[in-house]
Amino acid sequence: MINIPRGTQDILPKDTPTWRYVESKLNEIAATYNYKEIRTPMFESTDLFARGVGDSTDIVQKEMYTFKDKSDRSMTLRPEGTAAVVRSYIENKMHGDANQPIKLYYTGPMFRYERKQKGRYRQFVQFGVEAIGAENPAIDAEVLHMLYHIYTSFGLKSLKLVINSIGDMDSRTEYKEALVKHFTPHIGEFCQDCQNRLHSNPMRILDCKVDKDQPSVKTAPKISDYLNDYSKNYYEQVKKNLDILDIPYVEDASLVRGLDYYTHTAFEMMSETEGFGAITTLCGGGRYNGLLEMLDGPSETGIGFALSIERLLLALEAEGIELEAEEPIDLFVVTMPDTETHGLKLLADLRTSGISCDMDYLKRKVKGQFKQADRLNALYTVVLGSEEIASNQFKLKEMKSGSETVLPREEIITFIKERR
Amino acid sequence: MINIPRGTQDILPKDTPTWRYVESKLNEIAATYNYKEIRTPMFESTDLFARGVGDSTDIVQKEMYTFKDKSDRSMTLRPEGTAAVVRSYIENKMHGDANQPIKLYYTGPMFRYERKQKGRYRQFVQFGVEAIGAENPAIDAEVLHMLYHIYTSFGLKSLKLVINSIGDMDSRTEYKEALVKHFTPHIGEFCQDCQNRLHSNPMRILDCKVDKDQPSVKTAPKISDYLNDYSKNYYEQVKKNLDILDIPYVEDASLVRGLDYYTHTAFEMMSETEGFGAITTLCGGGRYNGLLEMLDGPSETGIGFALSIERLLLALEAEGIELEAEEPIDLFVVTMPDTETHGLKLLADLRTSGISCDMDYLKRKVKGQFKQADRLNALYTVVLGSEEIASNQFKLKEMKSGSETVLPREEIITFIKERR
Repeated sequence: MINIPRGTQDILPKDTPTWRYVESKLNEIAATYNYKEIRTPMFESTDLFARGVGDSTDIVQKEMYTFKDKSDRSMTLRPEGTAAVVRSYIENKMHGDANQPIKLYYTGPMFRYERKQKGRYRQFVQFGVEAIGAENPAIDAEVLHMLYHIYTSFGLKSLKLVINSIGDMDSRTEYKEALVKHFTPHIGEFCQDCQNRLHSNPMRILDCKVDKDQPSVKTAPKISDYLNDYSKNYYEQVKKNLDILDIPYVEDASLVRGLDYYTHTAFEMMSETEGFGAITTLCGGGRYNGLLEMLDGPSETGIGFALSIERLLLALEAEGIELEAEEPIDLFVVTMPDTETHGLKLLADLRTSGISCDMDYLKRKVKGQFKQADRLNALYTVVLGSEEIASNQFKLKEMKSGSETVLPREEIITFIKERR
Repeated sequence: MINIPRGTQDILPKDTPTWRYVESKLNEIAATYNYKEIRTPMFESTDLFARGVGDSTDIVQKEMYTFKDKSDRSMTLRPEGTAAVVRSYIENKMHGDANQPIKLYYTGPMFRYERKQKGRYRQFVQFGVEAIGAENPAIDAEVLHMLYHIYTSFGLKSLKLVINSIGDMDSRTEYKEALVKHFTPHIGEFCQDCQNRLHSNPMRILDCKVDKDQPSVKTAPKISDYLNDYSKNYYEQVKKNLDILDIPYVEDASLVRGLDYYTHTAFEMMSETEGFGAITTLCGGGRYNGLLEMLDGPSETGIGFALSIERLLLALEAEGIELEAEEPIDLFVVTMPDTETHGLKLLADLRTSGISCDMDYLKRKVKGQFKQADRLNALYTVVLGSEEIASNQFKLKEMKSGSETVLPREEIITFIKERR
């Protein structure tokens, strides 16, 4: 027997209504913030991620699904959404639009070859937003408000929004020099990854999972001491905006984004529910002021976040929140051997009018058909016997109450539409 | 600059509303027929497609995106949907459900490395349905009715539904023998592909594009002469059902599905619009009574179809049908340098209540902000000056009529909700 690829999942009919509900709610929220949907391909040139995510990251070094296409070009299943959205922004010259900033969102599968664990799949679905073309603390606050609104509007309560500023490029450069100086005497005690990244990317030493208990990590210089006036003021404005919008947050100076193009505002939304598991991050994001230029685009700046829908569903489960996504059918038509064709015709008429309905295709007896109607959560049933057809008098039974109504065929559609 | 992979496309914000409209309509129609959504991964074991699509097909031989994962397993981006749905059906033991037949649908990207041409992409989106677990001409008719209903409900008129029966396994075996006998004397004149498939898959010679004008193709035996009584009767029942459901169709004895597990009903929906292009097939499908066993599943039978959303959109364009998928925003808030924060707070309150709105983040002058409101198709604008804030009297301007209404802040949400 051929199995599903390891680390991936089928989303089965019992669960897809919940997924559609979540996605449609995310679409609606994005629309209220005036973000427009964009869809990019499932794979891109490998080079895009090497440059746009970063050669030195775990994602690029260890987790990508990379393959040669039939013309020997190296392609990679997208491990995240930002690089491709920015690629599309540049390729489609969106910076030339009058309508600035360009506010985009996406929903779709991402692919990372990671160790299998709860809530982590090798194919997972991200919803993300990117606002490109405005460096303004007000839009940072808009993005954070959307993020906060998304989680709270699903009813989640045990949330922690963590923010930090990693400053502008100048602040970062000074800070990186300080980190190299600080870690150089101790670097022999660190893991190979950290030793390799000491000069290229010392900020990533701060969130290395292997070395997190090294004493020199705890005593490392803080980015907050290296922010220049512009960066400090920008961060203060962002926090002031969050206060005005009543968004609770905590600051964490160790929240850094290791990639060279991240600047200013960085944030993560965490779940604080007990028993949620080892990975408590629901969503991460930040401002990226160097990414567009790094991908040969214009010198525009952006901010965005990406959240995993799988982890959102896990958080809902952990907080005991059930989404209303049940989908009953309107009518089950019970047929006799000699009325199957009449049933088919009735179904066709009802379906064309938007009534959801079904009948038996397995020559079940009447009792078995009523059982099938129950399994399908049918709101109504109707028995189609030759007598009913001859007299044009059909008995609609409401399954919940058992109450029956006798109607001619032509009134069935209106009757159901008025009552469901 | 890094470009999008050749043969793929971005679906940009101007087009995504149409895509969402189409997909949501397809979801609704599937629900009225009581088909439930299933989502399978973007890639599967290569073996699944080799067996489930067929080793001898162009898809498997020439068009697949195949790669090794990091554990050296051969994976392939799914070129079609049926094999994976059947894999999931078997793996999740759906044949054990009491609720039979199992009626499933899917929407999502498929991947084929094909020559680039109009309306054909290397990543394209298919909507498809599969009804597994009932061999009954009534369900064949249900599937065909859904197909017909989908295209007509979008307003398409120039449609041609082509049907055929390729009979049960016994009929096919006899027919294949007749074909081998018929083609053997002429096979030297055929293309290499046809020479290779003479014994393994002679039915595919009939729809070979290279050899379609060979005289012996035209004089080949017809499947209709080889249908046994059961197959003939099954086909008659299907056609009778189509007549009862007022579905127009034409029969074409050359419509064969070359794969070994296809049986009985085969069909295609074609566009007959002028200038639609070389490929007129919008959708194809058929009954597959051997597929489940071929994938080591139970001996259940199925029927389904798959349609390309790109080609549906092309057909709509060719018939001059525009879908209503515009998305204006409710309100644009015009701010002054000293009221930006008030604007942010107003937006947050409105958005939380489901009002779609936006403001300026680029320090535009008032005139520039009104232009931006126009570009965003805002239904209303409101100017947020310090005077308005102090007096709590805000002037809402309806952009289309120019009419203005003065309101306190707390009445804005209700005012807009009642009027949009």
